Amino acid sequence: MTLAVAGTLMQTPAPDLLTVTDAVVEVQAGAIAAVHDRSTPEGAAAGRQALASAAERVELDPGTILMPGLVDLHIHAPQWPQLGTGLDLPLERWLVEYTFPLEARYADLEFAATVWNDLVPSLLAMGTTTGVYHSSNHLEATTALARTCARYGQRALVGRVAMDHPEDTPEWYRDATAAAGVDASAASIEAMAAVGSPLVEPVITPRFAPACTDALLQGLGELAEATGVRVQTHCAESDWHCGYAQERFGSTDPEALDSFGLIRPRTVLAHSDHLTDSDMALVAGHRAGVAHCPLSNAYFANAVFRVRRALAAGVGVGLGTDISGGARPGLLGVCQDAVTVSRMLEDGVDPALGTAERGVPESRIDTVTAFWLATAGGASVVDLPVGLIEPGRRFDAIAVRTDRPGGSIRLWDEFDDAARIFEKVVRLATADDISHVWVDGRSVKP
Amino acid sequence: MTLAVAGTLMQTPAPDLLTVTDAVVEVQAGAIAAVHDRSTPEGAAAGRQALASAAERVELDPGTILMPGLVDLHIHAPQWPQLGTGLDLPLERWLVEYTFPLEARYADLEFAATVWNDLVPSLLAMGTTTGVYHSSNHLEATTALARTCARYGQRALVGRVAMDHPEDTPEWYRDATAAAGVDASAASIEAMAAVGSPLVEPVITPRFAPACTDALLQGLGELAEATGVRVQTHCAESDWHCGYAQERFGSTDPEALDSFGLIRPRTVLAHSDHLTDSDMALVAGHRAGVAHCPLSNAYFANAVFRVRRALAAGVGVGLGTDISGGARPGLLGVCQDAVTVSRMLEDGVDPALGTAERGVPESRIDTVTAFWLATAGGASVVDLPVGLIEPGRRFDAIAVRTDRPGGSIRLWDEFDDAARIFEKVVRLATADDISHVWVDGRSVKP
Repeated sequence: MTLAVAGTLMQTPAPDLLTVTDAVVEVQAGAIAAVHDRSTPEGAAAGRQALASAAERVELDPGTILMPGLVDLHIHAPQWPQLGTGLDLPLERWLVEYTFPLEARYADLEFAATVWNDLVPSLLAMGTTTGVYHSSNHLEATTALARTCARYGQRALVGRVAMDHPEDTPEWYRDATAAAGVDASAASIEAMAAVGSPLVEPVITPRFAPACTDALLQGLGELAEATGVRVQTHCAESDWHCGYAQERFGSTDPEALDSFGLIRPRTVLAHSDHLTDSDMALVAGHRAGVAHCPLSNAYFANAVFRVRRALAAGVGVGLGTDISGGARPGLLGVCQDAVTVSRMLEDGVDPALGTAERGVPESRIDTVTAFWLATAGGASVVDLPVGLIEPGRRFDAIAVRTDRPGGSIRLWDEFDDAARIFEKVVRLATADDISHVWVDGRSVKP
Repeated sequence: MTLAVAGTLMQTPAPDLLTVTDAVVEVQAGAIAAVHDRSTPEGAAAGRQALASAAERVELDPGTILMPGLVDLHIHAPQWPQLGTGLDLPLERWLVEYTFPLEARYADLEFAATVWNDLVPSLLAMGTTTGVYHSSNHLEATTALARTCARYGQRALVGRVAMDHPEDTPEWYRDATAAAGVDASAASIEAMAAVGSPLVEPVITPRFAPACTDALLQGLGELAEATGVRVQTHCAESDWHCGYAQERFGSTDPEALDSFGLIRPRTVLAHSDHLTDSDMALVAGHRAGVAHCPLSNAYFANAVFRVRRALAAGVGVGLGTDISGGARPGLLGVCQDAVTVSRMLEDGVDPALGTAERGVPESRIDTVTAFWLATAGGASVVDLPVGLIEPGRRFDAIAVRTDRPGGSIRLWDEFDDAARIFEKVVRLATADDISHVWVDGRSVKP
C-alpha cells in the first residue's frame, strides 16, 4: 500500500529551525520512504513519479499546509467530561473534590466507552496524532481506551494510573495495596499487548509521589526495569507538591522518584515547573523528559516551567495539554500558550516590582520552538519515530487550511512569507481548519 | 418590527453574578421591550404571547445558549493583516518596524476596503457586536471603516488615529502638524456623522502620548471638551511607555493625559498595566475606564493589569483583543486569557522565588468576572446601552451551540449544571460554534 501526499510542508527539525518544502511525501506501509523537494528538477521528476505510481494520492491545495502530527505528552483521558470547568481550586483540593470522583466513574465500562469514543476522535480532529494518556485506576477501562485508540487509529501510550496512598487518595478510588497496584499495572501491560495494535503501547503510571506509598513506587520502578516499559508521572508541579516531597522524602520530588528507579530513559515527567538545576541535570542524565503544560501552569503550578533553561541543560521537552487541568484541548493552541507563558516568565507579572526584579531574562520561546516541542521534541522524549516528515519515520501528519471560508486564518500575499504563514497557522488555527489527519500513513480524520 | 427570541439566557449583571433564565426576549425596533422568564406561569404565558405576536421569531434549540453580545474595547483595525505574527519585538520597535509600515498602507482606499470587508464580518462571526476601533491615521480610510461597520451592522466606535511627534513616528506616517492632526480629527467626527448610522460613533484617538506633541494632545483634549465625543488612547502600557512619560512630563502617563484634558467620562484607556494606586483614583474620579487586553499583556506590557485592584478602586474595566498585539481575535477566547493571566499574576511565574515573593495575592478572577468584563463591564466603560439582555437596552446578542457535531464543546448531563455549561462556553467556544449574532435587533451573522 503506497500513499503520496503533495503540498507545502512546514516543519521544525530543530527548536530554532523552520523548514518549508514544496514536497511530495512518499509513504510505504505507513513509513515515509522519501520526501521529494519539487524546487529541484530531480525532486520534481521524482515527485511526479511517486504521485503517478502511488495507490493513493493526495494533492493539497496551495492554501493548505502539511505539517507533522502533534504529540500530546500529557492527557488525562477520564477528565475529558470536565474540560473547561473546575479550575478554581488548588491542585490538592481540585483532585479530591472534582477529579477523583469523576475518575472513579470509569469502573463503569459503558460510561468509559462513551467518553473514549468521543475523546479519541475529537483529539484526532485537532491534529493530536500521538496521545500520551493517563487513564483511570481501572484495568478494564484502560484497556478499553487502548482499544479505542487502536480502532480510531491514534498512536498512543496508555497508562493505567497506580495510586494507593491511604492519606492522599480516597478509599473508593485507589489500589487496595501496593502489591495490588503493581499487579494491576503489570496486568495492564499484558492486556495492552493483547490489543495487538502496533500503534498502542503501555506506560507505567504512578500518579505522583503523594498518591503512592514507597512500596508502590518501588514496585513500579522494578516493573519498569523488568519490562523496559516507559514510565510517566507528575513531577514537581506545585509548591504543595514540592513541599510534600521535602517533608516525606527529605529531597526534591525528582530525587525521590529517582530513588525508586522511576526516572529512566523515555520517562515522561509532567509539568516539572519547579525543577532545580540539579534536578534538571538528574533528568537529563537519565534521558528522561518533561511534558510542559503551559496553560495548566497558570492554574495549578504556581510558576512557569523554564523551557529554555531545561533545553540548555539537555532535558528533553515536549508539550502537553494536561486535559483537563489545561482548558485547551488542541496542541496548536497550546503552542501559542507556551509562547505566551514564556513571555510572562521573561518579563514578570507584577507591575509594582521594578523591571529588573520582575522576570527571568532570556526565558522567551517563539512559535518555531513551540511547534518543535509539540512535534519533534515530544516525539524524542518518548522515542517514537514521528514528529518530523523525513525518511524512516512513520507518516503521522496533519494538513491545515489557510483559506477556509469563515476560517480562522487570513493570508495577505503582500505581507505573508512562509515564516508568517507558519506563525498564523500555529497561533490561529482551530480544529475546524484542519482538513487532513494521518497516522501511520492512514487517513484518520473523523 | 418585532422580534422574539426564546432560549436559555446566560448573562452576568455583576462581576460576580451569573444568571440563567429560560427566557423569551421581546425586541421592538432594536430595543429590548421585555424578558419573560418561562419558569413562572405568568412569564411562560407572556412568552408564548410574545412569540405568537412577533413578526420574526427565533426559538433556539435546548443545546444553544443565548448571551449578550461581546464588547471589544480595543481593536486596531488596520493591523488585521498581521494578526498572529510579529510579536517578537518590544512595543517601541514593533510599532516602527512592523506596524507603522502596515498602517501607512491605508492611504490606499482599495486596500483599506479589502481589509475592512474581511475584518468586520469576521469579528461579527466571533460575536463581537460592539467594536471600539483604532483606525489608521487616514481620514478617508477611517470613514470607510465606519461605513463598513454600518453596512454589516456592527455597533462601533471608530477613531482616526492622531499622531504627530517628529521623534517617535515616521515622517511618512503622521499628521504634518498638531493643528493638522486636530483638524483631521474634527473632520473625522463630521464625516462619521455623515455616515448616518445610529450604530457608529466617532472617538477622538491620540495614539499615545509618545506619538503626540503637547500641542496635539492639548488640541484633542479641547476638541473632546467642545464636542463631547469620547476619547481613547493607550495608557501606561509598558516599562518603556511609563519611563517615557516620566522623562518627558515628569509625571505618570495618566497624569500627563489628564493634564491635557483627555481623561474624561467614557475615555477608554487601553492596557493601563502600570497604573499606580493614585492613577487608579484619577481614572475612577473622571469616570474613565480601562480596556484590559490580557494576551498582549504578555507580549508588550511587561506586566499584568491588576483587574481586581482596579475594580475595587472604582475604575471601569472591559476587555479588548488588542488586534493585532493580541493574537486571539475572538473575545470569548480572551475571557479565558483574562482568567489565565490573573492566575499568573496571583501566583507569580518564577519558580526560583519563594511562594510569598512570587505573586500578588487576591489577583485572580474567574470566568464569570471575565465575561462580565467582556459584556456589561465594557458597555459601561463606553456608556452604550448593551452588554445585558434587559428591558431598555438594545438587543445585541449571540447564541452559542454546545452540541455542534465536531464542535468545541461537550456536555455531560451527569456533571454539567448551568454554571459549568457557562464556563465551557466561555473557555472553549470558537467562532464556528456561534450560531446567531444580533446587533440592534438585527441578525448580522455573516
